[in-house]
Amino acid sequence: MSHLEEKTIKTEKIFNGKVISLQVDDVELPNGKTSKREIIKHPGAVAVLAITDENKIVMVEQYRKALEKMIIEIPAGKLEKGEEPASTARRELEEETGYDCEKLEWLISFYTSPGFADEIIHLYVAKGLFKKENAASLDEDEFVNVMEITLEKAQEYLREQRIYDAKTAYAIQYLQLQEALNK
Amino acid sequence: MSHLEEKTIKTEKIFNGKVISLQVDDVELPNGKTSKREIIKHPGAVAVLAITDENKIVMVEQYRKALEKMIIEIPAGKLEKGEEPASTARRELEEETGYDCEKLEWLISFYTSPGFADEIIHLYVAKGLFKKENAASLDEDEFVNVMEITLEKAQEYLREQRIYDAKTAYAIQYLQLQEALNK
Repeated sequence: MSHLEEKTIKTEKIFNGKVISLQVDDVELPNGKTSKREIIKHPGAVAVLAITDENKIVMVEQYRKALEKMIIEIPAGKLEKGEEPASTARRELEEETGYDCEKLEWLISFYTSPGFADEIIHLYVAKGLFKKENAASLDEDEFVNVMEITLEKAQEYLREQRIYDAKTAYAIQYLQLQEALNK
Repeated sequence: MSHLEEKTIKTEKIFNGKVISLQVDDVELPNGKTSKREIIKHPGAVAVLAITDENKIVMVEQYRKALEKMIIEIPAGKLEKGEEPASTARRELEEETGYDCEKLEWLISFYTSPGFADEIIHLYVAKGLFKKENAASLDEDEFVNVMEITLEKAQEYLREQRIYDAKTAYAIQYLQLQEALNK
């Protein structure tokens, strides 16, 4: 299907930040015309659906400046350079919640906004949680409330739009599906 | 939980494009220190899980410049200024697939990348599909292959990472959940 490919004619670098960078590409379209594509480069991220032995989901509530509001999400964080996603998942779980886990399984990876960004999220499921002594702490500009909630509560928060992002919505629906399949 | 709020000290506008804009906010953190937040503003989008009378899912395959590859997604598009999401959903379905629908129901809305962008996607389910005569056509820089596939095929494409984005993964899992609940 490469006949739909868009060839890069020119790349203009606009911004290079600590999290994202922005470039505008001039592209040649399949019909020979040209257009511009605004593209955000992102290092990629992980997210962790962590389930306690009491069958609660570990969530973090935090202020998201881009949204100008607090939302409740599963623990997540950006990949560091050269870091394996599974290591990032374990590190972010520890930093944000104080938990380590006996079992960490990859569930799915997906691009969040393919129309303008290359951000990919690798989603893991963590079980056999235990509190880690002297757990690594958050980055100095991160502040979160840790919560442990039932699936029913998570669905309620989703309806109330206190849970309001794609990865967390996917994770909750995944648990609903597991429950439905095991009935 | 407003004690975790980040107050804006200064906003620096970096870029204002045709799809996204970028700003860097200086913020005051809950501990009184300051940090920078890189923020993408996006108009918001809709996506449509369209199911034919033969129980096939209508998908579009397109080249995504940000990813430098083709992926298969449910039909989607950006909100125009002042446009109701349900109207956008119907318009994008028509433009990308030629289908109109008898029934359009809102399913969920979610932010795609709350860490750096305010993009929200409103996801709809469309049924009672029929081909519209003289259907509106795509924007002049959009090129897609329309496909109608079974849920089983969609799951296969997801495993093969030809389907690879959050909204489409969510939509497929939604259908799996409906199937499991109806068994």
